[in-house]
Amino acid sequence: MSERQMIILTEGNSNPHTAKTGCSILRYRPQEVVAVLDGTLEGQEVSEYLGVGEGLKFIASIDEARHANCLLIGIAPPGGKIPQSWRPIVLRAIECGMNVVSGLHDFITDDQEFVAAAEKQGVELVDVRKNDFTTIARRPGFREACFRVHTVGHDCSIGKMLTAVELTEGLKERGIDAKFCATGQTGIMLEGSGYPMDRVIADFISGAAEQLVLENEHHDVLLIEGQGSLVHPSYSAVTLGILHGSAPHALVLCYEVLRDKVTGVEHVAIPALPQIRRIFEVLSNVHQPCEVIGVSMNSRRVSEADAHVEQQRVAEKLGLPVTDIIRFGREPLVDAVIAARDRYLQALDSTQ
Amino acid sequence: MSERQMIILTEGNSNPHTAKTGCSILRYRPQEVVAVLDGTLEGQEVSEYLGVGEGLKFIASIDEARHANCLLIGIAPPGGKIPQSWRPIVLRAIECGMNVVSGLHDFITDDQEFVAAAEKQGVELVDVRKNDFTTIARRPGFREACFRVHTVGHDCSIGKMLTAVELTEGLKERGIDAKFCATGQTGIMLEGSGYPMDRVIADFISGAAEQLVLENEHHDVLLIEGQGSLVHPSYSAVTLGILHGSAPHALVLCYEVLRDKVTGVEHVAIPALPQIRRIFEVLSNVHQPCEVIGVSMNSRRVSEADAHVEQQRVAEKLGLPVTDIIRFGREPLVDAVIAARDRYLQALDSTQ
Repeated sequence: MSERQMIILTEGNSNPHTAKTGCSILRYRPQEVVAVLDGTLEGQEVSEYLGVGEGLKFIASIDEARHANCLLIGIAPPGGKIPQSWRPIVLRAIECGMNVVSGLHDFITDDQEFVAAAEKQGVELVDVRKNDFTTIARRPGFREACFRVHTVGHDCSIGKMLTAVELTEGLKERGIDAKFCATGQTGIMLEGSGYPMDRVIADFISGAAEQLVLENEHHDVLLIEGQGSLVHPSYSAVTLGILHGSAPHALVLCYEVLRDKVTGVEHVAIPALPQIRRIFEVLSNVHQPCEVIGVSMNSRRVSEADAHVEQQRVAEKLGLPVTDIIRFGREPLVDAVIAARDRYLQALDSTQ
Repeated sequence: MSERQMIILTEGNSNPHTAKTGCSILRYRPQEVVAVLDGTLEGQEVSEYLGVGEGLKFIASIDEARHANCLLIGIAPPGGKIPQSWRPIVLRAIECGMNVVSGLHDFITDDQEFVAAAEKQGVELVDVRKNDFTTIARRPGFREACFRVHTVGHDCSIGKMLTAVELTEGLKERGIDAKFCATGQTGIMLEGSGYPMDRVIADFISGAAEQLVLENEHHDVLLIEGQGSLVHPSYSAVTLGILHGSAPHALVLCYEVLRDKVTGVEHVAIPALPQIRRIFEVLSNVHQPCEVIGVSMNSRRVSEADAHVEQQRVAEKLGLPVTDIIRFGREPLVDAVIAARDRYLQALDSTQ
């Protein structure tokens, strides 16, 4: 994956929410991105619209970046279909000899026109969500010294992947053998491994999460990316499957300030944070002790002053460290993970 | 489906747990069953081994019931593969002109040898679990006067389908327009409709449960079959997807006396009933009020006297009506559903 020279396609959808896949690639793999394609914003600064991608301007056509070798579909909408208006863009990329990487539910490898074009040009079509995982969870018992931290949230698209990635980096900086475990298409694109949990057959979600831990338990700390929310009526099943399959020791609760309606079902209210904490702790404690150890706050919709007030409020209300990783840095949560791991290892020692 | 003359195949697996699909067909569609095939028990009474199937003896070969027009795979093991030793039996049934109905995860319609044989004979292969459901839950708002009861449990295979079917019948006897909503392969075989929730892609489980309600909300009471358990580490995702997608008003908690280890992961203990009740109520109440209104006890492993003692104990402990539907009848739970529905409709009236 290191040789990728990507065009990220966000045509007509260049905002941090819809284009979250593209934004994450721009944030964590900027050296692999040569252009962002959105003809509706041609010539404008990418960072002005996406908050990431410093120095890049939107291009309007594949032909403006012919040296790229890969087109990456930069959005992940619910239902996950390629917009009709994108088809000529994808076909042109294939004609220009580019591989196409997609994380959508609708597979590009199932699209006869794309497949025929790719075969003709000898390029690769990659569906990150495609899988045939069919193993149920068996609770084999994980390596005891492997400390598992899971990022969970009050809704989708609020920073669970970012939190897991940043905590992994922060722990590594402190000399700890940490590993980011991806559970969604964007995380898999970044890490080059993981399982697309929301695309696994329902019976096997926990099995896939368990397998993800088994493949990585030789590391000392796993940061397991969360999906959806236990209070999201559309995705709670995926959320619980990862929670029960990965059997974490600690949770980091992620939320966005001012988000109070469920994404995609905006007539449904999101419960208050203390209630969400309780729901996650009830479910994560069914089989072993686990607790929320910190809060990752996404405060992009409020001023920095308001973010400080909110940070203080939530820290007092929940009695937990709170930070906005982007604005205030990740260190309070890195500290919280290290402290929780130390407590865990001490308890483990005392029982042996 | 009314013209079916079935052979139920349980070869080497003729016990109520493994052969639960076959047992349910024998219990609720006995008029459609002409034989049960298990060569290891040839000539013995079916009811002695399965507890149902009065008057039938096990046969050893398809050729002993050539007048049948359908072979039904009577087991539903975890992982769901057809045993190698069954292949000649299935092929012989096809040769004899019988359709084959399967609820396994491994599809018979994906098996080249079965498909070729079926095409040659002009018979049908039916995979009850096969689906391409890809719609997420949208919380459209259901018909308010449609009262939804969901059967949930402390483990899998303890009577959630049976309870939903029996309560549906009991309500109909009292003149109430009730409908059984199937969520698993056996229920779908019985009812001729429903969704195989554990086979749906994870992102769409709640969507499938929601769709099941939308298709049936013209009835006055829906009895929605549960799957797995929120405390089953392998299947809790499926359980929660149905719970949040169908948004029930009332839960009937099903359990088996003496079952204290999780099926399939026997080194994991099942929590106590009050804790399970709490977990289901916490999760079912995320978006609307819902409570456990009664307990369906499966007491097959204890004497009738011990079952009475247990019934009394649980009724006092939980403050709820408790019955073993097979042993003591379904009426206490039918009463509980009617009472809960009356309370719900009164509350609905007073807000309008």
